Amino acid sequence: NPLLVKNTTEFNNAVKNANPGDVITMANGVWKDAELVFEGNGTADEPITLTVEEKGKVTLEGASNLQLAGEHLIVEGLVFKNGYTPTNAVISFRKNKKEIANNTRLTECVIDNYNNPERHVQDYWITIYGKNNRIDHNHIVGKKNLGVTMIVGLDTKESVANNHKIDHNYFGPRPTFGNNGGETLRIGTSHHALENSNTLVESNYFDRTNGEHEIISNKSCQNTFKYNTFFECTGTLTMRHGNETLVDGNVFIGNNKPSTGGVRIINESQTVINNYHIGLTGYRFRGAFVMMNGVPNSPPNRYVPVIDSKLNNNTFVNCEHIQLCAGSDAERSQAPRTSEISENIFYNENPKDIFTVYDDISGITFKDNILGQNNTTSIQEGFEKADITLVKNEQGFLIPTSDKIKNKITISPKIATKENTGTTWYSKEDKTVALNSGKTITVESGINTLYEATKNSNPGDILVLTSGETYLLTKAAKIKHPLTIKASGKDKPIILFERMMALEIQNGGSLSLDNIKFDGASAPDYAGNAVISTSKKSMIENYKLFIDNCEFTDFVVNHSFDVLRVSKGTFADTISIQNSKFKNITGHITALDKETDDIGAYNVEYFIMKNNTVTDVQGAALRLYRGGKDESTFGPFLEIEHNVFNNVGFGKKNKYQAAMSLYGVQVNDIKNNNFNNTNGLKMHLVVGEPIVNVVNNNYYKSGKIEVSGDEKYNIENLFNIAPTFK
Amino acid sequence: NPLLVKNTTEFNNAVKNANPGDVITMANGVWKDAELVFEGNGTADEPITLTVEEKGKVTLEGASNLQLAGEHLIVEGLVFKNGYTPTNAVISFRKNKKEIANNTRLTECVIDNYNNPERHVQDYWITIYGKNNRIDHNHIVGKKNLGVTMIVGLDTKESVANNHKIDHNYFGPRPTFGNNGGETLRIGTSHHALENSNTLVESNYFDRTNGEHEIISNKSCQNTFKYNTFFECTGTLTMRHGNETLVDGNVFIGNNKPSTGGVRIINESQTVINNYHIGLTGYRFRGAFVMMNGVPNSPPNRYVPVIDSKLNNNTFVNCEHIQLCAGSDAERSQAPRTSEISENIFYNENPKDIFTVYDDISGITFKDNILGQNNTTSIQEGFEKADITLVKNEQGFLIPTSDKIKNKITISPKIATKENTGTTWYSKEDKTVALNSGKTITVESGINTLYEATKNSNPGDILVLTSGETYLLTKAAKIKHPLTIKASGKDKPIILFERMMALEIQNGGSLSLDNIKFDGASAPDYAGNAVISTSKKSMIENYKLFIDNCEFTDFVVNHSFDVLRVSKGTFADTISIQNSKFKNITGHITALDKETDDIGAYNVEYFIMKNNTVTDVQGAALRLYRGGKDESTFGPFLEIEHNVFNNVGFGKKNKYQAAMSLYGVQVNDIKNNNFNNTNGLKMHLVVGEPIVNVVNNNYYKSGKIEVSGDEKYNIENLFNIAPTFK
Ligand SMILES: [Ca+2]
Ligand SMILES: [Ca+2]
Repeated sequence: NPLLVKNTTEFNNAVKNANPGDVITMANGVWKDAELVFEGNGTADEPITLTVEEKGKVTLEGASNLQLAGEHLIVEGLVFKNGYTPTNAVISFRKNKKEIANNTRLTECVIDNYNNPERHVQDYWITIYGKNNRIDHNHIVGKKNLGVTMIVGLDTKESVANNHKIDHNYFGPRPTFGNNGGETLRIGTSHHALENSNTLVESNYFDRTNGEHEIISNKSCQNTFKYNTFFECTGTLTMRHGNETLVDGNVFIGNNKPSTGGVRIINESQTVINNYHIGLTGYRFRGAFVMMNGVPNSPPNRYVPVIDSKLNNNTFVNCEHIQLCAGSDAERSQAPRTSEISENIFYNENPKDIFTVYDDISGITFKDNILGQNNTTSIQEGFEKADITLVKNEQGFLIPTSDKIKNKITISPKIATKENTGTTWYSKEDKTVALNSGKTITVESGINTLYEATKNSNPGDILVLTSGETYLLTKAAKIKHPLTIKASGKDKPIILFERMMALEIQNGGSLSLDNIKFDGASAPDYAGNAVISTSKKSMIENYKLFIDNCEFTDFVVNHSFDVLRVSKGTFADTISIQNSKFKNITGHITALDKETDDIGAYNVEYFIMKNNTVTDVQGAALRLYRGGKDESTFGPFLEIEHNVFNNVGFGKKNKYQAAMSLYGVQVNDIKNNNFNNTNGLKMHLVVGEPIVNVVNNNYYKSGKIEVSGDEKYNIENLFNIAPTFK
Repeated sequence: NPLLVKNTTEFNNAVKNANPGDVITMANGVWKDAELVFEGNGTADEPITLTVEEKGKVTLEGASNLQLAGEHLIVEGLVFKNGYTPTNAVISFRKNKKEIANNTRLTECVIDNYNNPERHVQDYWITIYGKNNRIDHNHIVGKKNLGVTMIVGLDTKESVANNHKIDHNYFGPRPTFGNNGGETLRIGTSHHALENSNTLVESNYFDRTNGEHEIISNKSCQNTFKYNTFFECTGTLTMRHGNETLVDGNVFIGNNKPSTGGVRIINESQTVINNYHIGLTGYRFRGAFVMMNGVPNSPPNRYVPVIDSKLNNNTFVNCEHIQLCAGSDAERSQAPRTSEISENIFYNENPKDIFTVYDDISGITFKDNILGQNNTTSIQEGFEKADITLVKNEQGFLIPTSDKIKNKITISPKIATKENTGTTWYSKEDKTVALNSGKTITVESGINTLYEATKNSNPGDILVLTSGETYLLTKAAKIKHPLTIKASGKDKPIILFERMMALEIQNGGSLSLDNIKFDGASAPDYAGNAVISTSKKSMIENYKLFIDNCEFTDFVVNHSFDVLRVSKGTFADTISIQNSKFKNITGHITALDKETDDIGAYNVEYFIMKNNTVTDVQGAALRLYRGGKDESTFGPFLEIEHNVFNNVGFGKKNKYQAAMSLYGVQVNDIKNNNFNNTNGLKMHLVVGEPIVNVVNNNYYKSGKIEVSGDEKYNIENLFNIAPTFK
């Protein structure tokens, strides 16, 4: 009985009266603020179906969501976009803890950027409860706020040993979240780690799902991961809790992108076989393969030591890091036992030992592994070298081939591809616009000409200001999309501004500044001005900021006048400041210390500062803060090289009295800088084996380098030479 | 030539072609995003006029503003509301630094709550430049974001000795801003302190203009303030910079409201005569009269010592504090010289010495002052006691009357009243809705019944939950206006919630909770939950939160689970927590430490915590932070009395390892509390003569009281007794 419903009232009536075999069809159009509950009892032969008039033409927008309850239901073709769920899930396989969906199929549904605009307010997109449910051919892309994209919940006995099948879904790009809670799939929780879930995750495509370093967080027992493809994912399939996991026949493609990883093993009786890995560069917990140390007598929700686990018959091509006994520390002191690494192929084109061993590996049996002809390992046995060539197979994979490889390496025809996952009718095209990809637009000098040009620009455009001319902004120019502002010639154009900021990066914006001079003389006489600021509201989109060959001078109309002022709830993929001059400033160059809740959040992933001169700055050149002890992220990454700091950080209002204060920064490269008559460098090392290289810096009449926290660091070649300035 | 214009294009044409004597009339309706430039050259006899079709029916909304330039212009009847200026002023008497308006009148215009939604983004409402301008009968109410309401600018020579007249304006309520930049009128700036402004400010009504403690900030020479009324203003008319000010015949009515003040003198040749003050309670820089110490050889923009100034023939009825040599410290060491206080009447009904003397007053001549019969003073001469009775005059003022008062005290008929200021056609009615002023609504228990009731409530309503019943919120209830939630009977109803917060106070909201129990068991398993949170966006409206007789237990699903979580850019007038229980919590009770820019901002004015028991809380009971050294505000005010703290503040993630950390708090009353097995109290005293009374507390097996900073404090009667709990 197909029945067309046009609004929520008709939908509710139809649901109330539905019998086995009925089909409820949602009419084309936008369903706004539709909180749908689809409940009923179909039968195996006669399910109750919820479908749409035409696929792609029914969208749920605004504060919409869907709850499922009952037996033998089918849902297909719904699209959620332009809004976000008012509850903690977009689609939930239960109405409440007691009314749950079983034997239910969710297929060809789309959730596209359906994000709460508050970056740090949590929700899930799909929560799976009950038993025998199938979630297949869905298209799930662009989750950007806090919370796992899809979870399998085990919090009542009605949901354990569930026998769910999650297959042929397209998990589209999820950008770096910058905190815990950016996983794409989680099965179970630490509270139910020892329950059997028996969930099959098969033939799904994970396309740059980069929220955090756990792409998949397995937290229950007896789950299977087969034929999934992980494309350029900056994390791993992690067996975080629970035992008897099978990871079989998956493909991990890194394309040499930074931080791409493979599989990470914790717990017991884990089996990792027949997987293919290529071009994975990640290290630490994001290695191509990671077998961790555990906590002796660990409770199930901490780090259970690895035993009875194996890595067998896997292929690693041009992967950079295999990490054994990873995470070894005072607490995680138990090395793996009765485990094996056997019949795997480790091949790198370049000479390299890709194995890092952090503790005793005598509990791991190494057997019949093959190593590329150029490659080495300090592991004493279980490896044989082979003369390997890479041969492209008909699926396009580079297959290591050698006399010594007896069984030809094959990739299952069931392997997920972009084509065989998701729907056929919803585009997987990447809509990201790059900086400098648009039109070049000349902007005349004058009052608010730059404001108008910014307002009328399109994503990727390049605004060219006339060299040497002056541009006054009486309104803050709002950067709503990727935009470049550059000079027409060699001399810098000058930007003056009357508001508390010249340029405001808003949600979706990115900015590149090239050969521009900013002058603070017209700014209002209030504390807290900034040349560039982010939106004061949460920004769900990550942004990029490039400053090259620019000049920032005379920001002194009041105290605390910063160059860049960011807000809580904003996150930069990259902030790069190069070849620029900063002089006579009452505030900071950059204060990236707004995430003060100490729950692991921070404001920037990559911060780069090279070849700049920074003179007479009362505040800090940099404050960078990552509070808390969360291990889900590996940033911020910091490079400070070849800068001159001259009289920086001595202002009375510079609370920490440091030219740079770095708290919880995980990678610190500070090299070849000249510090003259400048306040100190304060560094607090918290968590996650931070990498600290403070090398070849000259400190003359300058404050100390103070390091606190309990992590290792490296300070080398600290000079003390009077610099001469020309 | 009257000319009706219907849109910006017609307006621009009309302006372009306007001749002396022309009248341009804006058509009725909403003018949205109208950035108007009204420029032209009229003559004294034939000005060019901009008016409206019908007063009150022409509104400028959205991103609208007005710039004036030229000679002999008149603007009347414009209303700005529902939006905010895109530039740094709503109405400006110049187009740019060179094109300025002179001989121009702005009359009967309205600016009503035309606020940038970002509390800390600055703008002005009216900026006056040029010469001989008159600003009269305007209605200016509800500025809530950063920035002085009205300024007279002197930044070019075309604007000095300006002879402006600012008269009969109605300055309606401006709430406490919680930072510098909440002044209502400023004339000049510190950079132009020694320029003559020659501005007359006459017969204006200042109605609860409480932005900060400078209601008027006089920062130039030779200005006159006459016949103005200051009604319940929590600040003073301050002669901050510049000399030769005349303050004559004004009225200050405090009605015994906290922090109400009168006149504050700094600099030279200031004359304060014939003013009437009643019921002013303010102290420190907000006294009924304040004469400050100065800095020897001060630059004009610091604190110039008081000389040749006088307070003559003023009346003070029931005022609490006269402050002489106020602000005396190591830097401000110069007492007033060659000044006089003469022929004033100081009368208080109650026995009291209202004079506080902070330094040497030998430079002040006291002469012929009259003191009430009950009143005393330590000042040796110049006072005579008189038997005074208060007699109500025909204007309604209580006039001290006595044989000894020779000249009858009169109030000028020109004195500003609510009636003779502003316009006749725009209501001055107060639209504020109080808590508990609305309907009582019964809410059934169940899922989201409270969410729906909150959504459908009206300002002031009281939601009554059934005692002992359970209310589940799967959506956060949004508090958009003043709302009370209470129990129907003695037993507490229980609220559970599935989002990161149960209740979210949004802009315009206030909340009173009475006899309610909250349980955290259903909250999501993420760090950073809270029972009550403010909007994560900036809130331009101050809010109030009252928690009485409530219970908060078991907030432990993850770490950092707070009871109250506020955001940067939000400000509470009052947070009061009384007679409540808190137990088993991983986060803080209240962390009011989100204004981390160190520019004087903070999150709450009055914080009260009385008669509570706080047990097993990993975070802090309170963090309160006011960074920076700004002297424009006197908050936060803190009262912590009769609480029991038991095992509080020892969580690993409680960064400061304190049960309470107080930074820059200006009034600290911590009395009669019982601290048992609890972490310490950290207090940093920064600025503004903080008042610190830590009295009669019992500290048993608890952390220390650590006080830093260079201000005085009082810790008395610290006991060390093992408490017994029943
Ligand atoms: Ca995680
Ligand atoms: Ca001020």
